[in-house]
Amino acid sequence: MTSGILGSTATPQSCTERVAAAYRRLAEVDRPEVWITLRAEAEVAAEAAAIEARLAEGAVLPLAGILVAVKDNIDVAGLPTTAACPEFAYLPGETAAAIERLVAAGALVLGKTNLDQFATGLVGTRSPYGAVRHARNPELISGGSSSGSAVAVALGIADIGIGTDTAGSGRVPAALHGIAGIKASLGIIPTHGVVPACADYDAVTVFAADLDRAVAAAAVMAGPEARDPRSRSWPADVRLAAPAAPRLAIPRAEELTDLTPAYREAFTRTVAALADSGITTEIVDISGLLDAARLLYDGAIVAERYAAVGGFLASRPAGADPTVAAIIAAAGETTGPGFVADLDALARARAAARELLDGFDGLLLPTTTEHPSIAAVQADPIGINRRMGAYTNFCNLLDMAAVAVPGAPTADGAPFGVMVVVPAFADQVAVDIAARITGSEAPALLDHGVDLAVFGAHLRGQPLHWQLEEIGARFAGEIRTTDAYRLTALDTVPPKPGLVRHGAGLGAPILGELFRVSPAGLGGFLAALPAPMALTSIELSDGRSVIGFACTYDAAQAATDITSYGGWKAFLQNRN
Amino acid sequence: MTSGILGSTATPQSCTERVAAAYRRLAEVDRPEVWITLRAEAEVAAEAAAIEARLAEGAVLPLAGILVAVKDNIDVAGLPTTAACPEFAYLPGETAAAIERLVAAGALVLGKTNLDQFATGLVGTRSPYGAVRHARNPELISGGSSSGSAVAVALGIADIGIGTDTAGSGRVPAALHGIAGIKASLGIIPTHGVVPACADYDAVTVFAADLDRAVAAAAVMAGPEARDPRSRSWPADVRLAAPAAPRLAIPRAEELTDLTPAYREAFTRTVAALADSGITTEIVDISGLLDAARLLYDGAIVAERYAAVGGFLASRPAGADPTVAAIIAAAGETTGPGFVADLDALARARAAARELLDGFDGLLLPTTTEHPSIAAVQADPIGINRRMGAYTNFCNLLDMAAVAVPGAPTADGAPFGVMVVVPAFADQVAVDIAARITGSEAPALLDHGVDLAVFGAHLRGQPLHWQLEEIGARFAGEIRTTDAYRLTALDTVPPKPGLVRHGAGLGAPILGELFRVSPAGLGGFLAALPAPMALTSIELSDGRSVIGFACTYDAAQAATDITSYGGWKAFLQNRN
Repeated sequence: MTSGILGSTATPQSCTERVAAAYRRLAEVDRPEVWITLRAEAEVAAEAAAIEARLAEGAVLPLAGILVAVKDNIDVAGLPTTAACPEFAYLPGETAAAIERLVAAGALVLGKTNLDQFATGLVGTRSPYGAVRHARNPELISGGSSSGSAVAVALGIADIGIGTDTAGSGRVPAALHGIAGIKASLGIIPTHGVVPACADYDAVTVFAADLDRAVAAAAVMAGPEARDPRSRSWPADVRLAAPAAPRLAIPRAEELTDLTPAYREAFTRTVAALADSGITTEIVDISGLLDAARLLYDGAIVAERYAAVGGFLASRPAGADPTVAAIIAAAGETTGPGFVADLDALARARAAARELLDGFDGLLLPTTTEHPSIAAVQADPIGINRRMGAYTNFCNLLDMAAVAVPGAPTADGAPFGVMVVVPAFADQVAVDIAARITGSEAPALLDHGVDLAVFGAHLRGQPLHWQLEEIGARFAGEIRTTDAYRLTALDTVPPKPGLVRHGAGLGAPILGELFRVSPAGLGGFLAALPAPMALTSIELSDGRSVIGFACTYDAAQAATDITSYGGWKAFLQNRN
Repeated sequence: MTSGILGSTATPQSCTERVAAAYRRLAEVDRPEVWITLRAEAEVAAEAAAIEARLAEGAVLPLAGILVAVKDNIDVAGLPTTAACPEFAYLPGETAAAIERLVAAGALVLGKTNLDQFATGLVGTRSPYGAVRHARNPELISGGSSSGSAVAVALGIADIGIGTDTAGSGRVPAALHGIAGIKASLGIIPTHGVVPACADYDAVTVFAADLDRAVAAAAVMAGPEARDPRSRSWPADVRLAAPAAPRLAIPRAEELTDLTPAYREAFTRTVAALADSGITTEIVDISGLLDAARLLYDGAIVAERYAAVGGFLASRPAGADPTVAAIIAAAGETTGPGFVADLDALARARAAARELLDGFDGLLLPTTTEHPSIAAVQADPIGINRRMGAYTNFCNLLDMAAVAVPGAPTADGAPFGVMVVVPAFADQVAVDIAARITGSEAPALLDHGVDLAVFGAHLRGQPLHWQLEEIGARFAGEIRTTDAYRLTALDTVPPKPGLVRHGAGLGAPILGELFRVSPAGLGGFLAALPAPMALTSIELSDGRSVIGFACTYDAAQAATDITSYGGWKAFLQNRN
């Protein structure tokens, strides 16, 4: 069996074969610190068999047989949740909403993975279950806090690693392993069933070896959830695509000085290659973002962490990581007015960030500054961690989304990661640009919007196509009408065709293009539509009816019939 | 001269005559405690003359000559801002954005009004500039904190009183005076230039003797503002009207026990009268809202007040009101984790409120519980104040908007106020329902959306009109097309007309109705449009072109010409 997502990226295997392969790989790599709870192979294999049976009965399971590693601060019913602190462990009766959605789509949970305790850290070393070693070079850190989930993916055990990201935990380990990490806008993937780090700034994230697979999983996890009070819906004017020639902001050289020389050089090469992908760049001053980033740990916002687990840690559990415990204990000393002052700073920084990125499709940043050894982090657990979060920390605080993908590797072939950072709800734009950077097809994150069929000046490459780009319309393929339509050439500037319905059999299939647009995008597009153009329901040759172009009666009568060309582009190319 | 707003509600007078009348009234009422800074009559008269000169030159000034009283926690360049604490006073160089917009629209500022110090209170007695006495009964409180602005309006001195509202300060004084008070959604009227009470929950508000005038001023003040980091725009799917038969939630009897018997009885009569206005009601459990209300003062959220002025009050200024100073000093003791815990409670209460009001157009509540004497409040400054805010306190915390209007008066003829409370951005819905309650025409708060002309089954009273109600479409008048159109009767269920453009002079003016809809509303409407209907640009007899109905070519050809009826309703009534 293959599902859509597996078909493109993996050798077709049955679900049960995939489970067996994963457990063989697990034994082979011998990385016990990756897992806090690993499920028994037989149990997962039985679920795989059940999935196969459902597929055989015709069930549609977009993630059938996809193997998932779940960070151990996210509940899976029947498996203990530890947040990497043994004394904190509890046995949840309910699975987190995001994981529940993956499982409903056919995914199989392999187990619960190690993390920086209470998701406090970007390094992967802060756990009594052991420092998680890098997949390729075990002397180096894995990155964290979603360390085990990232390494399970990087080692080829799991297809998908589910993490959380408050300060960068869903992106830094992706950068260090050359894999993809998606941190959607806050509230898009529900945090129900997640041990909070900072409840107001936590996101559930996904790692995968390639962007396509990460997006497929994120798409399944996204959507409103009644059990999550911070759940948010896509707005009515959500952009569904990046433009053909995206415009990216990039930082100034002086804001990159904390990068190692190898990373700095890799970032420069990554940026240089953007032009080949049709992406233009402009340097901006991101110092305001970097200042906001420091509010996450150096101000009073860290009180969010105390509110989450401070009371528990005050009991001095033996398994508390000393660095984590010290950070959270200090957070207990923050004051209400101090917290409010930092909220005010955040409100200002958020407005400034919106203004900074106005006119850009996104911001390209290095994901992290360096790839230290475990020994180095153990010698300086706070300083290195702080530096590594310089580019990730501000993202949730300022209500932004980010997609982390590999940039150009370093000169000696080590992975180097970049992030496409966008304002809240522009997640699909970030995915599309990230796909450009990795040279892959842009997968759809949002199953959202309205279909719009165009037949003339709005086709790709035609003079009014920019109007579709402006409303974030997403190309959804070429289409043909039924044979009820005749195509005419109208007397307009620029020249436009009029698609005229005469009735079944009285015309010919006419070639057009289908786009998905947001409801508000479609409304705005219609509001600006000049005479004699009209929008109506159009019958397609595949049996669907979609909204598409027509024209007024008098214009149709006065126009020249060009049905024989079969489409507007053919007419433009072949007319005399 | 008359402006649009004055024309309907006031005797036409020149701007200078209106200023002279206001200062006569000021002298007559002898209420010095209303004002902290009153401008010299000659200065205001000179500005009035300048407005008249601009009107004579053809300037369009929607608020020409409207007299404004500004609460003294809002900056007006050149007048001191005291926030009712003499030692806090500063002379702002810049006028608050909201006031700037009023002045740009032709309004004239009379002066700065008294308030509960630092906008902390709902009573109007907490000020070293004197307790503000009720306009009609000086033994009673005016309500606060926007006490002076409300009384200036109630006494007939100012047309518009500008206040602020964190806990109910823009609504309680309206209730006690039988006037209108509008507290728009947070971020809609900029708070730039306002001394914060709780920066994250402050709103600039407006009082006026009637809803129409209050809405006209609110409409001028509303809109994005670069200088306000908390500024928000109307969403793309904003509702532009209440439905014809609104559905209101009302509280259970046990949630009204804090009301005086006279107020309780007035509320019952107000609710009973709703049916006559075409409003249906359903009792809901609002205990969650009332619990959330208590978070404003009884939890850690009050730290917002300390962050605003706690440092200043720590210097023990002589003019500090003892009650206000005590509340804010206590707020200094709140902790960061305590604040976060209350933020979490608010997030949950916000989600619960959304769920509670799902399916309702709004919630009707008494604005306040009682109308105490000044002496009673001085004897129990905290207890009475807390009770009076029971129904108002939760509104900003839970991101809701409210319109306060007079309900049925008490049996002995005293004013009694009610509020229509709605989720964020449903402000226009609240205005429309409040207008129903007061028996007035519903004024437009939002100058927003797209025009849509309908000619058949979507007309008011016709079978598909509900589709327009569902997207919050606002009726904008009857319209006629140019004579380029012919009307046909299509073969559809339900029966629909097809408006067919034949060309100038080849048809007749066809009667239709115009609606304003949000961009997303229009897009969703189009997406659901069945064949053979179409939307296109329609020329109106008044010279405008708007989006409106058409139909496909083949349907037009097959339809029966009914142009001679001049419109669909005439055809339905007169056909044989």
